[in-house]
Amino acid sequence: LNIITLRLFLLLILIPVFSSHAQIKTEYYSIADSIISHSLSEQKGYSWLSELCSIGPRLSGSENLNKAVEWSRKKIESLGLEAWLQPVMVPHWERGRFESAEIVSPGAGKKLVIAALGGSVNTPAEGITAGIIEVKNFVELEKRKDEVKGKIVFFNHPLNPSWTSPFEGYEDAVQFRSRGAMEAIKYGAAGVLIRSITSRHDNVPHTGAMRKYDPAYAKIPDAALGYKDADYLEAELKKNPSLQINIKLDCMTFPDVLSYNIITEIKGSKYPDEIVLVGGHIDSWDKGTGAHDDGAGIMQCLEVLDLFKRLNIKPSRTIRCVIFANEENGVRGAQAYAKYSDSLSVKHIAAIESDRGAFTPRAFEFDADSIHKSKVLEGLNAMLPVLKKAGIEWVKEGDGGVDISFINNVNAHIGYVPDEQRYFDVHHSDNDVYEAVNPREMQLGTAAIAIITYLISENGL
Amino acid sequence: LNIITLRLFLLLILIPVFSSHAQIKTEYYSIADSIISHSLSEQKGYSWLSELCSIGPRLSGSENLNKAVEWSRKKIESLGLEAWLQPVMVPHWERGRFESAEIVSPGAGKKLVIAALGGSVNTPAEGITAGIIEVKNFVELEKRKDEVKGKIVFFNHPLNPSWTSPFEGYEDAVQFRSRGAMEAIKYGAAGVLIRSITSRHDNVPHTGAMRKYDPAYAKIPDAALGYKDADYLEAELKKNPSLQINIKLDCMTFPDVLSYNIITEIKGSKYPDEIVLVGGHIDSWDKGTGAHDDGAGIMQCLEVLDLFKRLNIKPSRTIRCVIFANEENGVRGAQAYAKYSDSLSVKHIAAIESDRGAFTPRAFEFDADSIHKSKVLEGLNAMLPVLKKAGIEWVKEGDGGVDISFINNVNAHIGYVPDEQRYFDVHHSDNDVYEAVNPREMQLGTAAIAIITYLISENGL
Repeated sequence: LNIITLRLFLLLILIPVFSSHAQIKTEYYSIADSIISHSLSEQKGYSWLSELCSIGPRLSGSENLNKAVEWSRKKIESLGLEAWLQPVMVPHWERGRFESAEIVSPGAGKKLVIAALGGSVNTPAEGITAGIIEVKNFVELEKRKDEVKGKIVFFNHPLNPSWTSPFEGYEDAVQFRSRGAMEAIKYGAAGVLIRSITSRHDNVPHTGAMRKYDPAYAKIPDAALGYKDADYLEAELKKNPSLQINIKLDCMTFPDVLSYNIITEIKGSKYPDEIVLVGGHIDSWDKGTGAHDDGAGIMQCLEVLDLFKRLNIKPSRTIRCVIFANEENGVRGAQAYAKYSDSLSVKHIAAIESDRGAFTPRAFEFDADSIHKSKVLEGLNAMLPVLKKAGIEWVKEGDGGVDISFINNVNAHIGYVPDEQRYFDVHHSDNDVYEAVNPREMQLGTAAIAIITYLISENGL
Repeated sequence: LNIITLRLFLLLILIPVFSSHAQIKTEYYSIADSIISHSLSEQKGYSWLSELCSIGPRLSGSENLNKAVEWSRKKIESLGLEAWLQPVMVPHWERGRFESAEIVSPGAGKKLVIAALGGSVNTPAEGITAGIIEVKNFVELEKRKDEVKGKIVFFNHPLNPSWTSPFEGYEDAVQFRSRGAMEAIKYGAAGVLIRSITSRHDNVPHTGAMRKYDPAYAKIPDAALGYKDADYLEAELKKNPSLQINIKLDCMTFPDVLSYNIITEIKGSKYPDEIVLVGGHIDSWDKGTGAHDDGAGIMQCLEVLDLFKRLNIKPSRTIRCVIFANEENGVRGAQAYAKYSDSLSVKHIAAIESDRGAFTPRAFEFDADSIHKSKVLEGLNAMLPVLKKAGIEWVKEGDGGVDISFINNVNAHIGYVPDEQRYFDVHHSDNDVYEAVNPREMQLGTAAIAIITYLISENGL
């Protein structure tokens, strides 16, 4: 059997099988071309992102977040859409007026760059001064638990640079940010420092959420060191294991405040009660301006609806954009939306999230229950030839995204997967600014999301 | 027939068919992992690039190019390899001490940012002053040929922003850079300006080669306008079609000078006479420091050999790194190498080029003659599961690259295809500097090139 003949044979028997499920019409290709062309050449979402970022960072509970919500409402209305603000109570933590770390012995005066982790308590005004115990992970912490009392535990666990996927490195390292203080306090630690979780080896500290303190233990301050200063501290500790450090944090948690999910939609022409949701989150950390995380993501989702309007595309199903409140330190917006929509049995055909940065499109990942899984995979694979026009290479089972994950009445949670090499260069830090977003990369992502939204709207899933 | 059963059946009949051709051993996956891990965490090529870029731009004929050749020779020897310098005569064109454009009527004094195109003649010291005729393309030039005499032709043809592939936009726009002056002089033009071929809409002009002047006509000055100033000029011409501009260029072509292809290799353990070539070019334009084009490319190729040494990989075939002289304005190095190697019937199993920027890996393209084509495609596709570890999504027939294209005695010319969205932001301009290279993106590319080189070395093609 000649391999060419075999392939031809396979192709012939495969075509009818796939196309019976696929229903990918020829016109979808030209609609995709049109979406790509307008998104790339008009760059509307990218210009909106400039306006959004000019407000400043948008931490939950901040005045900037209120401004961003109001800006979003006006932007939606300026597009000829209606904005619904769904009230959500969100956490309110502030970094405060100062934060610092300084080696005080031996040889006082060397300052280290730190950023308090979100949710950390403050220190007394004079700070805390203590020795340091450096550990690589929780196993080492457990082994050396008798040395921890009264010390600052330094979790020196970098984002592993040797793996192709920085997201895998992040997953591996983030446990020390989220649980480091909780584990260290069990052995009487005075505080915690972590090496910033970053793929860029500069000295810009990367913040992020720590888990809520366990009420059974004292609350200890928790901060991230700049990557270079983590190197410095590591080297100094080799020379002086009894080195003493002073840490000052002014951060504080205030009572929850009112904020909003911002929701807008285009009604479906044939199946208005079936929803294809696209969304991201409006809040950001208080470092940088949350350009990639997740300002660009919400601008992409909003532009999906605007592209449909600009191109006079009348979707068969309802396209709903949800700009979620408070993803970073509480996921309150996501929970509020899911509670509302599931309680009303709102039928989501798919929920699509963009929250991995505004880089060049690579893929979509999805999760679905066992009833829908194989049909979803088949449906998305049938769409792949159209999606490839915007640079989408594959679809596979994986992670949809945290904001959409609470929605139960949905066939599939779908996560937009852009190139991931630069995401943790900027994530949760002063590097995450508008200038770090490339317009073509962002707008090609917008096109990819618009195309999958359109195809799901027309074909179901 | 259930589709799952069908797929299983297909899988079962396909596996033996493919694996009989593929010979992809399990150990290749772990070798790929090791290559990726070392490339990403050690970032040697990226640190070499910093040294190379610190020399400055490396235009053919410049003193910097001599320094870069010498730096390369020393670097190769420091790696425990031998460097062979193959003499090549290269063009020597210099930008000179000044270049400027200024609107002189109406309302003198508005300066426009320009960069002479490589190969352009100079103007008199006082410049040339003329009216402007703006055209979108050669068809419009032909239609309006009677208006051209004594004017500066302004080819206002942007890199089309609406296509997914900026390379397609570049191919479409570059004809006005390469042939604009040749066409305009036929109708008596006094000079040519083009809109810079760029995907970044700043005002940094992008240079590049123009074709040699036709001896049958006069030589006229030829330069690229910054993108924003091209916008400005377009708008001003709408208001004042008889606007006059003065252009001053000090550039000049000097006699050819001696330079070198730099060649090094690791001898194959089983088939030392069969060569897998990896290469890029050492020369750059005189704007920026040629970090992406093609400093990073040659550092990647050089690190392929060093990775083999660091990891104690003994390739079956000879791995030869060729750092080509003078790609940008003459392709002399490529021709010299091919003439040498083909005249000695040197057998290249594959020639692999990295010259599309140091961005995240996406693919490999190849071209091969009709004898080798189907076997090459099959061989590369068999390697794809290993290559995917470094982010390679596909292989297909396409363009190998200009430097390797002259080699005839080769089974396949293979081009490394990274993500292309940001390449024309920097290409041939002051934006192409070390800081524009992301270390992870570059080093993952190095790994991808090392893996394909290794697989071809072991399996042939």
